[in-house]
Amino acid sequence: MLYDLIVLGGGPAGYNAAEHAGHAGLKTLVIEERSLGGVCLNEGCIPTKTLLYSAKIFDYSKHGADYGVKFDSAAIDHAFVVERKNKVVKQLVSGVGAKLKKAGVEVVNASAAIKERNSEGFVITAGDKEYIGKQILICTGSSPALPPIDGLADSLKSGFALTNREVLDLKEIPKTIVIVGGGVIGLEMASYFNSVGSKVYVVEMMNYIAGPVDREISTMLQKEYAARGVEFILGAKVTSIKDKTVTYEKDGKSVALPADYALVSIGRRPRTTGIGCENIGLKLERGAIVTNEYGKTNVPGVWAAGDVNGKSMLAHTAYREGEVCINNILGKKDRINYNSIPSVIYTNPEVASVGETTESAKEKGLDVTVKNVTLKYSGRYIAENEHGNGIVKIIVDNKHNNIVGLHMIGSYASEIIYGAAMMVETEMRVADIQKLVFPHPTVCEVIREGMFL
Amino acid sequence: MLYDLIVLGGGPAGYNAAEHAGHAGLKTLVIEERSLGGVCLNEGCIPTKTLLYSAKIFDYSKHGADYGVKFDSAAIDHAFVVERKNKVVKQLVSGVGAKLKKAGVEVVNASAAIKERNSEGFVITAGDKEYIGKQILICTGSSPALPPIDGLADSLKSGFALTNREVLDLKEIPKTIVIVGGGVIGLEMASYFNSVGSKVYVVEMMNYIAGPVDREISTMLQKEYAARGVEFILGAKVTSIKDKTVTYEKDGKSVALPADYALVSIGRRPRTTGIGCENIGLKLERGAIVTNEYGKTNVPGVWAAGDVNGKSMLAHTAYREGEVCINNILGKKDRINYNSIPSVIYTNPEVASVGETTESAKEKGLDVTVKNVTLKYSGRYIAENEHGNGIVKIIVDNKHNNIVGLHMIGSYASEIIYGAAMMVETEMRVADIQKLVFPHPTVCEVIREGMFL
Repeated sequence: MLYDLIVLGGGPAGYNAAEHAGHAGLKTLVIEERSLGGVCLNEGCIPTKTLLYSAKIFDYSKHGADYGVKFDSAAIDHAFVVERKNKVVKQLVSGVGAKLKKAGVEVVNASAAIKERNSEGFVITAGDKEYIGKQILICTGSSPALPPIDGLADSLKSGFALTNREVLDLKEIPKTIVIVGGGVIGLEMASYFNSVGSKVYVVEMMNYIAGPVDREISTMLQKEYAARGVEFILGAKVTSIKDKTVTYEKDGKSVALPADYALVSIGRRPRTTGIGCENIGLKLERGAIVTNEYGKTNVPGVWAAGDVNGKSMLAHTAYREGEVCINNILGKKDRINYNSIPSVIYTNPEVASVGETTESAKEKGLDVTVKNVTLKYSGRYIAENEHGNGIVKIIVDNKHNNIVGLHMIGSYASEIIYGAAMMVETEMRVADIQKLVFPHPTVCEVIREGMFL
Repeated sequence: MLYDLIVLGGGPAGYNAAEHAGHAGLKTLVIEERSLGGVCLNEGCIPTKTLLYSAKIFDYSKHGADYGVKFDSAAIDHAFVVERKNKVVKQLVSGVGAKLKKAGVEVVNASAAIKERNSEGFVITAGDKEYIGKQILICTGSSPALPPIDGLADSLKSGFALTNREVLDLKEIPKTIVIVGGGVIGLEMASYFNSVGSKVYVVEMMNYIAGPVDREISTMLQKEYAARGVEFILGAKVTSIKDKTVTYEKDGKSVALPADYALVSIGRRPRTTGIGCENIGLKLERGAIVTNEYGKTNVPGVWAAGDVNGKSMLAHTAYREGEVCINNILGKKDRINYNSIPSVIYTNPEVASVGETTESAKEKGLDVTVKNVTLKYSGRYIAENEHGNGIVKIIVDNKHNNIVGLHMIGSYASEIIYGAAMMVETEMRVADIQKLVFPHPTVCEVIREGMFL
């Protein structure tokens, strides 16, 4: 069968691109090995948010008295939470399927690989069939990084070690869980298990958590969770994961942490092996498919979007990259601006960021002013947060007095950051934002307040 | 004493303007009769949000089981909630005082009136003293509209009838409360009392609630609260409020509603009587001080901002109007765009709006497309809302394909709407928003989704 476009992988990059391609009239096929929606929908963004929302409600029971609401007793039913998560995922996966159907996109459920290029296009094998795409879009995503730590392979088999996939389906709340890697996935799961009563250890190789997040904010987040009982072990190297024990080295000493489970969340790697990149001479760098800002690879007619290009590794970047590829395929020149992509950590408080941080601005030699504003300027924040100490940091480029970054920790950060991304993307100046009217009382209005400091 | 600027009223318009004036080096005096912060901070925005947040936590206890969290019993301590509200208000009022002090602004606590104009400026009497301002800024705000309904005056004295002020300090939860007027204040208080267990009636003269809000959305809000037990009596005229009874006429019939309390929230009127407008020939229209887009009145040197000009009657409009006046006083030409001012109703679900509605666009003869998008496109919304049916309606002007209005009902609407206000203010086009990257998973990303429908 000959298609205008074959999309390898039905995650955020792939399904969204395919939908756009289908609506634009391209004869489009998506080949997905597992479930439509990819990691994001099945084992990432959505399931974690479902769990975290239940945890948030449970947390209210602990702090309700501060706000005049008393609970005699409260309990979280973890098995129910997981079951509900599965229902939410199922509903959304079926929604993706319906969208693709509506766009006239065909879907094949099989493992795909590129076999060769012939006169018609690119030959893709999937299951026992072959399909030919005049052009192809590779959206095979990423897999958890699993380095050769002593015992890890066996522990994954035995079920002691978990990745982002298995951790979401635990049947019961662990008494003790060691989380290896203090990035977004690690912190969100630490937040969940801390809320529901597990003893949580986070072992991180760097001296700070949350990777590229503004250092002051990541430190605040760490303090917040440390106060709630999470133990952070930073600057530590995990040397073995076996016998229901995680062993790490720190400051020359070796320490053993017995636990019920170990979650390994130390990063993700582009999924480029076994898909036949070598059969058409696709250029890879450090395991990622090399693409330019238009989504083009080194092979004409072959495009790539999403985690597989190793650039941003975020679902919403993947959506946009997929769209950029389709627009360019359709001859409508389009490119993505990686400087204005927001990111969120759905802990409680939430952390959200876009653009330059104090650290990255310094590295680039930018002349910036950092406006560091307490959320206590917000009446709503005070009304809703006893003992809250959230902040927003706004990075202003002194040359044109425009916003180049914004970082915050506090309530609603996840839903506020898109506006900041608009400010960065449109190079809005301080004076422009001063003239905008923000609704009162909100947390977001602190951004405007910061423009006058 | 001679001042560069005397500000009459220390509410959102006045205190914010005074702070800006002070920082700009103007010798500034604020005269406030009651408490700094005005209605918004003392008897409006902030206290209601404090109450509503406690109610929201209490509501979680009712619906927690849907998310796997079980509460054996939960109770709300209304007296505690009110006490906490007072603490929050006190903290914020003292914050306003500190800000003014820092800006070098003097504050006098007295009732002020304009006495006359003399060769130095405008003579203001406050208490038993006189102050002269080279220029003056009138920010006396608004008062609840209290029409001559039979028995209302006596019922206000006896404590049966309440305004937005008294309702916030009720010592106990009423068994039954009749809310006269289904606008923002009425609906927010209906939401609170419904949550904490009162039987709530909302009697409204129009055939719909929530005034200028998009009609489809106000109908959804009404249905939601009707399902929770609030009784809406629309198209009804209240004829008397006495003997612990509210009597209304509807369809030619007279009906008596006995109740513990009646909240009268049928609108607000600019506070222009008793402040000496007539002594300097200030032009009023329907009781409001007439101002142009620069905040100027008909008398040179006299400015007005906030509710007293009768334009928008929102705290955040007042902030901006005050700033516009100060900028123009300082010779920096500035004007306010009333088309891009957002508004929020803090019910649960929240309602937020900016710009043209379907109805207002039609009235103005605009050629628009209405994109009506379900929030079920948002994975986060589904994860966090069992049985939720929120929507966002995006009004696009077909001439330039730009956003001229956005209206939503659903979670986080209050914190999302500022971004939509930016879109309206900067006349952003559909194609521009398509290229923005919204964080996933969020509720706000439905706005982007709508751009492709």
